[in-house]
Amino acid sequence: MGLEEYFPVWNQLTSGERELLLGTAVKRTAPKGALLHSGSADCVGLFVLRSGQLRAFILSDEGKEITIYRLFERDVCLFSASCMMKNIQFDVDVEAEKDTEMWVVPADVYKRLMDGSLAVANYTNQLMASRFSEVMWLVEQIMWKSFDKRLAEFLLEESALNDGNTLKITHEKIASHLGTAREVVTRMLRYFQSEGMVSLARGTVELTDRKRLQALVK
Amino acid sequence: MGLEEYFPVWNQLTSGERELLLGTAVKRTAPKGALLHSGSADCVGLFVLRSGQLRAFILSDEGKEITIYRLFERDVCLFSASCMMKNIQFDVDVEAEKDTEMWVVPADVYKRLMDGSLAVANYTNQLMASRFSEVMWLVEQIMWKSFDKRLAEFLLEESALNDGNTLKITHEKIASHLGTAREVVTRMLRYFQSEGMVSLARGTVELTDRKRLQALVK
Repeated sequence: MGLEEYFPVWNQLTSGERELLLGTAVKRTAPKGALLHSGSADCVGLFVLRSGQLRAFILSDEGKEITIYRLFERDVCLFSASCMMKNIQFDVDVEAEKDTEMWVVPADVYKRLMDGSLAVANYTNQLMASRFSEVMWLVEQIMWKSFDKRLAEFLLEESALNDGNTLKITHEKIASHLGTAREVVTRMLRYFQSEGMVSLARGTVELTDRKRLQALVK
Repeated sequence: MGLEEYFPVWNQLTSGERELLLGTAVKRTAPKGALLHSGSADCVGLFVLRSGQLRAFILSDEGKEITIYRLFERDVCLFSASCMMKNIQFDVDVEAEKDTEMWVVPADVYKRLMDGSLAVANYTNQLMASRFSEVMWLVEQIMWKSFDKRLAEFLLEESALNDGNTLKITHEKIASHLGTAREVVTRMLRYFQSEGMVSLARGTVELTDRKRLQALVK
Protein backbone atom coordinates (compact mmCIF):
# COMPACT_ATOMS: atom_id res chain seq x y z
CA MET A 1 0.00 0.00 0.00
CA GLY A 2 1.25 3.44 -0.86
CA LEU A 3 1.03 6.94 0.56
CA GLU A 4 -2.48 7.32 -0.86
CA GLU A 5 -3.66 4.78 1.71
CA TYR A 6 -2.01 6.58 4.60
CA PHE A 7 -2.23 10.31 3.96
CA PRO A 8 -5.13 11.52 6.14
CA VAL A 9 -7.22 13.60 3.73
CA TRP A 10 -6.14 11.96 0.46
CA ASN A 11 -9.73 11.65 -0.77
CA GLN A 12 -10.20 15.40 -0.50
CA LEU A 13 -7.12 16.36 -2.50
CA THR A 14 -7.19 17.48 -6.12
CA SER A 15 -5.31 15.39 -8.65
CA GLY A 16 -2.65 18.10 -8.82
CA GLU A 17 -2.15 17.99 -5.06
CA ARG A 18 -1.93 14.19 -5.17
CA GLU A 19 0.72 14.31 -7.86
CA LEU A 20 2.70 16.88 -5.90
CA LEU A 21 2.64 14.63 -2.84
CA LEU A 22 3.55 11.44 -4.70
CA GLY A 23 6.31 13.25 -6.55
CA THR A 24 7.98 14.73 -3.49
CA ALA A 25 7.32 12.44 -0.51
CA VAL A 26 10.20 10.11 0.25
CA LYS A 27 9.90 6.71 1.84
CA ARG A 28 12.26 6.19 4.71
CA THR A 29 12.99 3.57 7.31
CA ALA A 30 14.44 4.35 10.70
CA PRO A 31 15.89 1.74 13.04
CA LYS A 32 14.83 1.64 16.67
CA GLY A 33 16.73 4.31 18.59
CA ALA A 34 17.34 6.65 15.65
CA LEU A 35 16.93 10.37 16.31
CA LEU A 36 14.83 11.64 13.41
CA HIS A 37 14.39 15.26 14.27
CA SER A 38 16.13 17.52 16.70
CA GLY A 39 14.65 20.84 17.71
CA SER A 40 14.73 23.76 15.35
CA ALA A 41 18.11 22.75 13.96
CA ASP A 42 16.52 20.76 11.19
CA CYS A 43 13.17 20.84 9.48
CA VAL A 44 13.09 17.46 7.86
CA GLY A 45 9.43 17.49 6.94
CA LEU A 46 6.14 15.93 7.90
CA PHE A 47 6.25 12.25 8.86
CA VAL A 48 3.40 9.94 7.86
CA LEU A 49 3.83 6.61 9.65
CA ARG A 50 3.41 3.35 7.79
CA SER A 51 4.49 1.14 10.68
CA GLY A 52 6.51 1.36 13.85
CA GLN A 53 6.48 3.90 16.66
CA LEU A 54 7.92 7.36 17.21
CA ARG A 55 8.28 9.39 20.38
CA ALA A 56 8.22 13.20 20.49
CA PHE A 57 9.85 14.81 23.50
CA ILE A 58 11.29 18.04 24.81
CA LEU A 59 14.75 18.23 26.24
CA SER A 60 16.05 20.52 28.95
CA ASP A 61 19.52 22.07 28.99
CA GLU A 62 20.45 19.51 31.60
CA GLY A 63 19.37 16.66 29.34
CA LYS A 64 16.10 15.85 31.11
CA GLU A 65 13.37 14.60 28.80
CA ILE A 66 9.61 14.80 28.83
CA THR A 67 7.66 12.68 26.37
CA ILE A 68 4.88 14.81 24.94
CA TYR A 69 3.27 12.28 22.66
CA ARG A 70 3.79 9.06 20.74
CA LEU A 71 2.99 8.28 17.12
CA PHE A 72 1.80 5.00 15.71
CA GLU A 73 0.74 3.61 12.32
CA ARG A 74 -1.15 6.23 10.27
CA ASP A 75 -0.23 9.05 12.64
CA VAL A 76 1.25 12.27 11.34
CA CYS A 77 4.12 14.15 12.96
CA LEU A 78 3.66 17.86 12.43
CA PHE A 79 6.46 19.28 14.54
CA SER A 80 9.22 17.71 12.50
CA ALA A 81 8.06 20.25 9.89
CA SER A 82 7.46 23.09 12.34
CA CYS A 83 9.59 25.53 10.34
CA MET A 84 6.67 25.85 7.93
CA MET A 85 4.62 27.58 10.63
CA LYS A 86 6.21 30.80 11.73
CA ASN A 87 4.32 30.89 15.02
CA ILE A 88 5.68 27.60 16.32
CA GLN A 89 8.54 28.62 18.53
CA PHE A 90 9.42 25.59 20.51
CA ASP A 91 11.68 22.66 19.86
CA VAL A 92 10.61 19.07 19.83
CA ASP A 93 12.86 16.05 19.34
CA VAL A 94 11.57 12.91 17.66
CA GLU A 95 13.07 9.45 17.93
CA ALA A 96 12.12 5.99 16.70
CA GLU A 97 11.07 3.70 19.53
CA LYS A 98 10.63 0.77 17.18
CA ASP A 99 11.88 0.09 13.68
CA THR A 100 9.75 2.54 11.72
CA GLU A 101 8.67 2.92 8.10
CA MET A 102 7.31 6.26 7.02
CA TRP A 103 6.96 8.82 4.29
CA VAL A 104 8.61 12.18 4.69
CA VAL A 105 6.71 15.06 3.07
CA PRO A 106 9.01 18.09 2.60
CA ALA A 107 7.96 21.01 4.80
CA ASP A 108 7.54 23.42 1.88
CA VAL A 109 5.32 20.92 0.05
CA TYR A 110 3.07 20.49 3.07
CA LYS A 111 2.95 24.27 3.44
CA ARG A 112 1.78 24.58 -0.18
CA LEU A 113 -0.93 21.98 0.43
CA MET A 114 -2.05 23.75 3.58
CA ASP A 115 -2.21 27.09 1.80
CA GLY A 116 -4.22 25.64 -1.06
CA SER A 117 -6.46 23.00 0.44
CA LEU A 118 -9.19 23.59 3.01
CA ALA A 119 -9.12 19.89 3.88
CA VAL A 120 -5.40 19.96 4.66
CA ALA A 121 -5.67 23.26 6.56
CA ASN A 122 -8.48 22.01 8.77
CA TYR A 123 -6.85 18.62 9.22
CA THR A 124 -3.74 20.45 10.46
CA ASN A 125 -5.92 22.40 12.86
CA GLN A 126 -7.34 19.24 14.34
CA LEU A 127 -3.90 17.67 14.55
CA MET A 128 -2.49 20.65 16.38
CA ALA A 129 -5.49 20.76 18.70
CA SER A 130 -4.88 17.11 19.63
CA ARG A 131 -1.21 17.65 20.38
CA PHE A 132 -2.01 20.83 22.27
CA SER A 133 -4.50 18.91 24.39
CA GLU A 134 -1.94 16.23 25.18
CA VAL A 135 0.56 18.83 26.31
CA MET A 136 -2.03 20.68 28.41
CA TRP A 137 -2.93 17.40 30.05
CA LEU A 138 0.73 16.80 30.88
CA VAL A 139 1.03 20.32 32.28
CA GLU A 140 -1.99 19.94 34.49
CA GLN A 141 -1.60 16.38 35.69
CA ILE A 142 2.10 15.75 35.95
CA MET A 143 3.69 19.09 36.61
CA TRP A 144 0.98 20.72 38.57
CA LYS A 145 -1.32 18.35 40.31
CA SER A 146 1.48 15.79 40.80
CA PHE A 147 -1.06 13.09 40.22
CA ASP A 148 1.62 10.89 38.65
CA LYS A 149 3.50 10.86 41.95
CA ARG A 150 0.42 10.11 43.99
CA LEU A 151 -0.60 7.28 41.70
CA ALA A 152 2.91 5.77 41.59
CA GLU A 153 3.07 5.95 45.37
CA PHE A 154 -0.29 4.23 45.70
CA LEU A 155 0.67 1.42 43.29
CA LEU A 156 3.94 0.76 45.11
CA GLU A 157 2.23 0.71 48.49
CA GLU A 158 -0.46 -1.67 47.29
CA SER A 159 2.17 -3.90 45.75
CA ALA A 160 4.08 -4.02 49.05
CA LEU A 161 0.86 -4.90 50.89
CA ASN A 162 0.04 -7.66 48.42
CA ASP A 163 3.60 -8.90 48.22
CA GLY A 164 3.54 -9.07 44.41
CA ASN A 165 3.74 -7.02 41.23
CA THR A 166 0.23 -7.75 40.02
CA LEU A 167 -2.55 -5.81 41.70
CA LYS A 168 -6.13 -6.95 41.40
CA ILE A 169 -7.87 -3.61 41.54
CA THR A 170 -10.20 -1.59 39.34
CA HIS A 171 -9.50 1.94 38.16
CA GLU A 172 -12.70 2.95 39.92
CA LYS A 173 -11.33 1.70 43.24
CA ILE A 174 -7.98 3.44 42.75
CA ALA A 175 -9.88 6.64 41.95
CA SER A 176 -11.87 6.49 45.15
CA HIS A 177 -8.68 5.80 47.14
CA LEU A 178 -7.07 8.88 45.64
CA GLY A 179 -10.14 11.09 45.69
CA THR A 180 -10.35 11.62 41.96
CA ALA A 181 -12.35 10.50 38.93
CA ARG A 182 -11.95 7.11 37.24
CA GLU A 183 -11.11 8.80 33.91
CA VAL A 184 -8.14 10.55 35.49
CA VAL A 185 -6.79 7.26 36.83
CA THR A 186 -7.34 5.44 33.53
CA ARG A 187 -5.56 8.12 31.56
CA MET A 188 -2.56 8.23 33.88
CA LEU A 189 -2.34 4.41 33.98
CA ARG A 190 -2.31 4.41 30.17
CA TYR A 191 0.45 6.97 30.26
CA PHE A 192 2.39 4.76 32.70
CA GLN A 193 1.78 1.83 30.39
CA SER A 194 3.05 3.73 27.35
CA GLU A 195 6.17 4.52 29.38
CA GLY A 196 6.60 0.81 30.19
CA MET A 197 6.06 1.25 33.92
CA VAL A 198 2.90 -0.85 34.20
CA SER A 199 0.99 -3.34 32.11
CA LEU A 200 -2.81 -3.18 32.14
CA ALA A 201 -5.34 -5.96 31.78
CA ARG A 202 -8.97 -6.28 32.78
CA GLY A 203 -9.15 -5.82 36.53
CA THR A 204 -5.38 -5.89 37.06
CA VAL A 205 -2.43 -3.55 37.05
CA GLU A 206 0.99 -5.14 36.79
CA LEU A 207 4.02 -3.15 37.89
CA THR A 208 6.66 -3.74 35.21
CA ASP A 209 9.26 -1.12 36.16
CA ARG A 210 9.35 -0.53 39.90
CA LYS A 211 12.51 1.56 39.66
CA ARG A 212 10.90 4.18 37.47
CA LEU A 213 7.78 4.24 39.63
CA GLN A 214 9.99 4.75 42.67
CA ALA A 215 11.88 7.51 40.86
CA LEU A 216 8.56 9.27 40.24
CA VAL A 217 7.71 9.25 43.94
CA LYS A 218 11.00 10.87 44.92
CA MET B 1 -14.88 51.38 13.78
CA GLY B 2 -16.67 48.09 13.37
CA LEU B 3 -15.85 44.41 13.32
CA GLU B 4 -14.57 44.72 9.74
CA GLU B 5 -11.64 46.72 11.10
CA TYR B 6 -10.79 44.17 13.76
CA PHE B 7 -11.51 40.74 12.33
CA PRO B 8 -8.07 39.38 11.32
CA VAL B 9 -8.65 38.11 7.77
CA TRP B 10 -11.62 40.32 6.85
CA ASN B 11 -10.09 41.26 3.49
CA GLN B 12 -9.94 37.64 2.47
CA LEU B 13 -13.58 36.84 3.25
CA THR B 14 -16.31 36.56 0.63
CA SER B 15 -19.22 38.98 0.86
CA GLY B 16 -21.41 36.11 2.09
CA GLU B 17 -18.96 35.33 4.88
CA ARG B 18 -18.80 39.01 5.84
CA GLU B 19 -22.58 39.22 6.04
CA LEU B 20 -22.72 36.09 8.15
CA LEU B 21 -20.20 37.59 10.58
CA LEU B 22 -21.84 40.99 10.79
CA GLY B 23 -25.24 39.38 11.22
CA THR B 24 -24.26 37.09 14.07
CA ALA B 25 -21.41 38.69 16.01
CA VAL B 26 -22.55 40.48 19.14
CA LYS B 27 -20.83 43.44 20.71
CA ARG B 28 -20.24 43.03 24.39
CA THR B 29 -18.56 44.91 27.18
CA ALA B 30 -17.10 43.25 30.24
CA PRO B 31 -16.11 45.09 33.39
CA LYS B 32 -12.72 44.48 34.95
CA GLY B 33 -12.83 41.27 36.97
CA ALA B 34 -15.65 39.61 35.02
CA LEU B 35 -15.26 35.89 34.30
CA LEU B 36 -16.10 35.55 30.62
CA HIS B 37 -15.54 31.90 30.00
CA SER B 38 -15.14 28.97 32.31
CA GLY B 39 -13.72 25.68 31.11
CA SER B 40 -15.80 23.37 29.00
CA ALA B 41 -19.00 24.27 30.82
CA ASP B 42 -19.79 27.00 28.32
CA CYS B 43 -18.79 27.70 24.76
CA VAL B 44 -19.61 31.34 24.44
CA GLY B 45 -17.83 31.90 21.16
CA LEU B 46 -14.77 33.54 19.71
CA PHE B 47 -13.77 36.87 21.24
CA VAL B 48 -12.36 39.63 19.05
CA LEU B 49 -11.00 42.40 21.27
CA ARG B 50 -11.77 46.02 20.49
CA SER B 51 -10.13 47.39 23.65
CA GLY B 52 -9.18 46.28 27.13
CA GLN B 53 -7.35 43.18 28.32
CA LEU B 54 -8.25 39.55 28.93
CA ARG B 55 -6.36 36.84 30.75
CA ALA B 56 -6.62 33.13 29.93
CA PHE B 57 -5.66 30.73 32.68
CA ILE B 58 -5.96 27.16 33.82
CA LEU B 59 -7.25 26.28 37.25
CA SER B 60 -6.34 23.31 39.42
CA ASP B 61 -8.79 21.44 41.64
CA GLU B 62 -7.23 23.23 44.58
CA GLY B 63 -7.89 26.61 43.00
CA LYS B 64 -4.32 27.36 41.89
CA GLU B 65 -4.09 29.37 38.69
CA ILE B 66 -1.55 29.56 35.90
CA THR B 67 -1.86 32.37 33.38
CA ILE B 68 -1.27 30.91 29.95
CA TYR B 69 -1.62 34.05 27.89
CA ARG B 70 -3.06 37.55 27.76
CA LEU B 71 -5.12 39.20 25.05
CA PHE B 72 -5.03 42.82 24.01
CA GLU B 73 -6.68 45.03 21.38
CA ARG B 74 -7.18 43.14 18.09
CA ASP B 75 -6.31 39.80 19.65
CA VAL B 76 -8.59 36.82 19.16
CA CYS B 77 -9.49 34.34 21.88
CA LEU B 78 -9.97 30.90 20.36
CA PHE B 79 -10.43 28.77 23.41
CA SER B 80 -13.63 30.44 24.50
CA ALA B 81 -15.02 28.70 21.41
CA SER B 82 -13.10 25.47 21.91
CA CYS B 83 -16.23 23.33 21.63
CA MET B 84 -16.10 23.87 17.87
CA MET B 85 -12.91 21.78 17.69
CA LYS B 86 -13.51 18.27 18.83
CA ASN B 87 -9.85 17.62 19.54
CA ILE B 88 -9.46 20.38 22.10
CA GLN B 89 -9.84 18.59 25.38
CA PHE B 90 -8.66 21.00 27.99
CA ASP B 91 -10.33 23.75 29.92
CA VAL B 92 -9.30 27.36 29.93
CA ASP B 93 -10.85 30.15 31.96
CA VAL B 94 -10.92 33.70 30.65
CA GLU B 95 -11.39 36.84 32.71
CA ALA B 96 -11.31 40.56 32.01
CA GLU B 97 -8.28 42.25 33.57
CA LYS B 98 -9.43 45.67 32.41
CA ASP B 99 -12.78 46.97 31.23
CA THR B 100 -13.03 45.27 27.87
CA GLU B 101 -15.01 45.81 24.68
CA MET B 102 -15.24 42.97 22.22
CA TRP B 103 -17.26 41.15 19.64
CA VAL B 104 -18.41 37.64 20.34
CA VAL B 105 -18.62 35.42 17.26
CA PRO B 106 -20.80 32.35 17.95
CA ALA B 107 -18.78 29.12 17.93
CA ASP B 108 -20.90 27.50 15.21
CA VAL B 109 -20.51 30.56 12.97
CA TYR B 110 -16.73 30.52 13.35
CA LYS B 111 -16.75 26.78 12.64
CA ARG B 112 -18.67 27.44 9.41
CA LEU B 113 -16.16 30.08 8.39
CA MET B 114 -13.26 27.79 9.17
CA ASP B 115 -14.80 24.96 7.16
CA GLY B 116 -15.43 27.23 4.19
CA SER B 117 -12.55 29.68 4.10
CA LEU B 118 -8.89 28.81 3.60
CA ALA B 119 -7.91 32.17 5.03
CA VAL B 120 -9.84 31.56 8.26
CA ALA B 121 -8.60 27.95 8.53
CA ASN B 122 -4.95 28.95 8.15
CA TYR B 123 -5.37 31.98 10.41
CA THR B 124 -6.73 29.60 13.05
CA ASN B 125 -3.70 27.38 12.55
CA GLN B 126 -1.34 30.26 13.18
CA LEU B 127 -3.33 31.38 16.19
CA MET B 128 -3.23 27.93 17.73
CA ALA B 129 0.48 27.60 16.97
CA SER B 130 1.12 30.87 18.84
CA ARG B 131 -0.83 29.81 21.91
CA PHE B 132 0.78 26.39 21.79
CA SER B 133 4.20 28.03 21.76
CA GLU B 134 3.34 30.18 24.75
CA VAL B 135 2.23 27.14 26.71
CA MET B 136 5.34 25.16 25.73
CA TRP B 137 7.45 28.05 26.85
CA LEU B 138 5.71 28.08 30.22
CA VAL B 139 6.20 24.33 30.53
CA GLU B 140 9.89 24.52 29.79
CA GLN B 141 10.87 27.66 31.62
CA ILE B 142 8.68 27.82 34.67
CA MET B 143 7.81 24.29 35.53
CA TRP B 144 10.91 22.55 34.38
CA LYS B 145 13.97 24.72 34.28
CA SER B 146 12.74 26.81 37.21
CA PHE B 147 14.22 29.84 35.55
CA ASP B 148 11.51 32.02 37.08
CA LYS B 149 12.79 31.12 40.55
CA ARG B 150 16.40 31.75 39.67
CA LEU B 151 15.59 35.11 38.13
CA ALA B 152 13.38 36.20 41.04
CA GLU B 153 16.11 35.19 43.46
CA PHE B 154 18.71 37.15 41.53
CA LEU B 155 16.53 40.29 41.40
CA LEU B 156 15.84 40.16 45.13
CA GLU B 157 19.52 39.67 45.96
CA GLU B 158 20.58 42.54 43.72
CA SER B 159 17.92 44.74 45.25
CA ALA B 160 19.20 43.91 48.76
CA LEU B 161 22.76 44.70 47.67
CA ASN B 162 21.70 48.01 46.14
CA ASP B 163 19.34 48.86 48.96
CA GLY B 164 16.54 49.88 46.60
CA ASN B 165 13.79 48.59 44.33
CA THR B 166 15.23 49.94 41.10
CA LEU B 167 18.11 47.99 39.61
CA LYS B 168 20.33 49.57 36.98
CA ILE B 169 21.24 46.49 35.02
CA THR B 170 20.90 45.29 31.44
CA HIS B 171 19.22 42.05 30.43
CA GLU B 172 22.55 41.04 28.90
CA LYS B 173 24.26 41.35 32.25
CA ILE B 174 21.56 39.42 34.07
CA ALA B 175 21.87 36.70 31.44
CA SER B 176 25.61 36.37 31.95
CA HIS B 177 25.11 36.24 35.74
CA LEU B 178 22.62 33.41 35.32
CA GLY B 179 24.45 31.59 32.56
CA THR B 180 21.69 31.92 29.99
CA ALA B 181 20.81 33.88 26.85
CA ARG B 182 19.62 37.48 26.85
CA GLU B 183 16.41 36.49 25.05
CA VAL B 184 15.50 34.12 27.88
CA VAL B 185 15.96 36.88 30.45
CA THR B 186 14.00 39.41 28.41
CA ARG B 187 11.12 37.05 27.91
CA MET B 188 10.89 36.11 31.58
CA LEU B 189 11.19 39.75 32.66
CA ARG B 190 8.30 40.60 30.32
CA TYR B 191 6.34 37.77 31.87
CA PHE B 192 7.10 39.16 35.34
CA GLN B 193 6.03 42.59 34.10
CA SER B 194 2.75 41.26 32.74
CA GLU B 195 2.15 39.71 36.16
CA GLY B 196 2.83 43.06 37.83
CA MET B 197 5.97 41.90 39.65
CA VAL B 198 8.43 44.21 37.92
CA SER B 199 8.34 47.31 35.77
CA LEU B 200 10.79 47.58 32.90
CA ALA B 201 12.45 50.63 31.39
CA ARG B 202 15.60 51.12 29.37
CA GLY B 203 18.50 49.87 31.46
CA THR B 204 16.45 49.41 34.63
CA VAL B 205 14.30 46.81 36.30
CA GLU B 206 12.03 48.04 39.07
CA LEU B 207 10.70 45.52 41.58
CA THR B 208 7.02 46.38 42.04
CA ASP B 209 5.79 43.36 43.97
CA ARG B 210 8.49 41.94 46.23
CA LYS B 211 6.06 39.61 47.98
CA ARG B 212 5.21 37.72 44.81
CA LEU B 213 8.86 37.56 43.81
CA GLN B 214 9.67 36.16 47.25
CA ALA B 215 6.83 33.66 46.91
CA LEU B 216 8.34 32.46 43.63
CA VAL B 217 11.67 31.79 45.28
CA LYS B 218 10.16 29.60 47.99
